[in-house]
Parts: sequence; structure tokens; C-alpha cells
Amino acid sequence: MSVGCPDTIKAVLDQRSVFQVCSGGFVQSLAEQGRVMALRKGQVLLTSGGEASRFYIVLNGWVKLYRETLDGAQAVVDILTAGHMFGEVAVFEGDIYPYSAEAAETAQLVSLPLDALKAEMEGNPRLAMAMMRSMASGRKRQDEELEHRTLQNAPQRIGCFLLRLADQNAEGAVDIHLPYDKTLVASRLGMQPETFSRALAKLKKETGLRVKGATISLDSLDQLVRYSCSACSNEFPCSDLKSC
Amino acid sequence: MSVGCPDTIKAVLDQRSVFQVCSGGFVQSLAEQGRVMALRKGQVLLTSGGEASRFYIVLNGWVKLYRETLDGAQAVVDILTAGHMFGEVAVFEGDIYPYSAEAAETAQLVSLPLDALKAEMEGNPRLAMAMMRSMASGRKRQDEELEHRTLQNAPQRIGCFLLRLADQNAEGAVDIHLPYDKTLVASRLGMQPETFSRALAKLKKETGLRVKGATISLDSLDQLVRYSCSACSNEFPCSDLKSC
Repeated sequence: MSVGCPDTIKAVLDQRSVFQVCSGGFVQSLAEQGRVMALRKGQVLLTSGGEASRFYIVLNGWVKLYRETLDGAQAVVDILTAGHMFGEVAVFEGDIYPYSAEAAETAQLVSLPLDALKAEMEGNPRLAMAMMRSMASGRKRQDEELEHRTLQNAPQRIGCFLLRLADQNAEGAVDIHLPYDKTLVASRLGMQPETFSRALAKLKKETGLRVKGATISLDSLDQLVRYSCSACSNEFPCSDLKSC
Repeated sequence: MSVGCPDTIKAVLDQRSVFQVCSGGFVQSLAEQGRVMALRKGQVLLTSGGEASRFYIVLNGWVKLYRETLDGAQAVVDILTAGHMFGEVAVFEGDIYPYSAEAAETAQLVSLPLDALKAEMEGNPRLAMAMMRSMASGRKRQDEELEHRTLQNAPQRIGCFLLRLADQNAEGAVDIHLPYDKTLVASRLGMQPETFSRALAKLKKETGLRVKGATISLDSLDQLVRYSCSACSNEFPCSDLKSC
């Protein structure tokens, strides 16, 4: 089920830097072609290899992008929340989605027509440049992810994930809230649930963090930074978080 | 040491699809601002975090892109050969290189000014779109790489690497030549040399492949495909190889 809400959609588009370089007329027209839709947890929105005619922005909740192997195993490409855009990359893939997407938790999305975006990109170099900047920063994050999978051990990767959720300028005791359930955190980090449990236990021992439900408590970030960031090429605080 | 060779450089630019959408005048002018340079094995060309003014196209040999952690460990981002472009992404990173680059083997490169590329992209939506297509296909390859690091075991990943070097339409016996030494293949795959050796031994046992120096021989590709591609979301033959 989806409904047209041009005012809500225009407000969402206005917040995204890529659309700030477009004329008000284009954004208004795109908003009028948009639909707001709700997905229940587990509902599949699009399938890898499927024909693409829409792209999406998450309004709230969590959406999982993934691919499945012939064996039936699932690789999580990303987990997105409010403000994140996806599906737009199909423009460069012959209008084919390169991943599947489903709601990891109940979610609301804005659905928008790909052909309108494509036509505007072809005529507006500033939008094209803005889309490229956004793609380049996505690519850099993937590079870092690959680096971490190569050089960090499993407890260090969980530590890194937690540090990226924390207020990195906080001094003293810190609480960090997991944004979704631990099984999903494990698959986001490319770990089996049992690997994740063992790694979290090791991380507790190494850094003194405490876990209560979805809340992780630390006396300070220092020990976690020492433990995880030594195996990363970026300096702490993570400079790329601003653009996330 | 570098020299200007506008005719050679123009021929290199003409072969890259991103420059085929530019005017002959722009390509000629870019070629005239280019330099051909030689690097000896191990020579560092640029450093992650360094200020960027040039981008590069490999003429021959091998160039390694990588980042280093505080611990001194190295994560290989990519290994490039003839026709590959790098450094251009600094345009979107505030003119800062997001990786280091060094010659993995003796290499020749074309060095080109970033500001000329940037100015043309801002004024020519067709170049911007072509750059985006190229970036999107790079991003898709990274997604696949992340998927493989999550879902394939080490022997399967070596099998996948070999299959991507092979003539995928070959029938019957096949010889595959490693493009660079095994230590570099290991680091390209994010493995320690000893992990690589153990994994290669296992792959030999599972698929009957034979290794002699840098040549891998197989009675047919079938067994390798069955072994590696079951843990991949793409179908064999790999459709993305055409764009490589």
C-alpha cells in the first residue's frame, strides 16, 4: 500500500544534499511522482537482478540490502535507516537492481521514479557531480569495510561497529544502544551468530564493556579505541561519519 | 623521470570509454598536459591522505593500491594493470588521495592533471555520467568482494580468482597464468601467505588442479566452477568481466 504525500516527500528530498543542487521545480515534480509506503518486518521490496523502475529513501525503520548465493546463503550489503537512499544505482546497471532489499524491521519508505532522476542527471552536471560525491563516499566506506575484514579480528570489528554508533567526542562513561537485534548486527558484520557471541565475550574481557539487552556501557571510550583502532588506517574520531 | 608523449597518451585516452564522450579538443588538450613515467618495483607513487593534483592510467606492469593501519599492517585495496585508472576519485575527497599506490612490478604510467578532469566533468554531463557508470561498476565489484570474504572459504576465493583470469568459455583442458607472484595474490585476496598456501593445497585436492610455477592447469573448468561458484550470488560465466 502506498500513498502520495507531496509535501512530506518534498521535505525529505530537500534534506538530501544531492537534491539541493536541483531546481525547486524539479524537486517539486519529483515529490509529486513519489509515494510513501509501509513495509512489515521481513517484507521483500526488490530482488537482485530484477528490473528497476523506482528508487527509495528510508523514512524510518531499517532496510536490509543483501544478495543470495546459489547455496542459499545471504550476504548483507548494507543496513539502512532514515535518510538513506537505495536502488538509484540501477541507473548505471542497465536498469537492473544489483541487490535485494527487505525490511529488517517495520519501515516506511519514499518510492520515486528512476527515469525522472536519470533525465535530470543527464541534463544537470551539478546533480551528476553531487551523485558522484555520494557514490565516492559510499565506495570509500566499502574500502574501509574490506580493510577491516582483512585486518581486524572479530572482536575488533564489533568494537569498531560500536565506536561508530557512539558520540565519539564523549568524555567519561558512555552508553551505546544497538540499533537492531544482535543477529542482524552479526550478519551486518559478516559473522555467524555463534562467532559474534564468542567475539563479544572476548571484547568484554579485553575492554571491560558491559552488555544489558541492547545497551552497551563503558567507563570511557579509550580502551575500546586502543583495542579496535590500532588495526585501522583511519584516525579516531572517524572523519567519514560526518557524511553518513 | 617523466616525459611528454602526447600521441601515445591520446591513444591511451581514446581507448577508455569515459573519454569517448568528450570532444576531440578536450582529449587532445588533456593528452598534451600528460606525462609518461616509469616506476621501479616497490616505488611509492602516492600516499593515502596526501594532497592530490594528478590522476593516473597504467600503461603496463602492476600497481598496488593499499592503506596502512597504525599497527603497520597493509590492506590491499586493488591491484591494477594496463588500462586501469586510479587517483581520479580524489576529486570527490577534497583533493586528498584515499589510498597509497606503489609499483608491485616495474610499471609505466600516464600521469594527468586532476583539475582539467574536474573542470570538464562539471561542464559535460555525458562525462559525468560515464564516470558514474565506471564508479558504479567498481562499487559492484567491491560488493562482490565483500560478499566473497563473508561467504566463501579461502580455497573457494582462490578458485574464484583463478576463474576470473581464465577464458570462461573454454572447453576441455585449461591453463591459467598467475599475473603476479603468489605473495601478492595472497594479499590481493586478504590472506596471510601461510593461509594462502594451505588453501591452495586444499583447492588442489578438491578440484584436481595442478600448479607449476605461475601456471595452473585444469582438465576442465567444471570442477572449479562447482566448487567456488556455489558460494556466490552471480552466475557463471561472470557477467561483470566484460566491463573490467
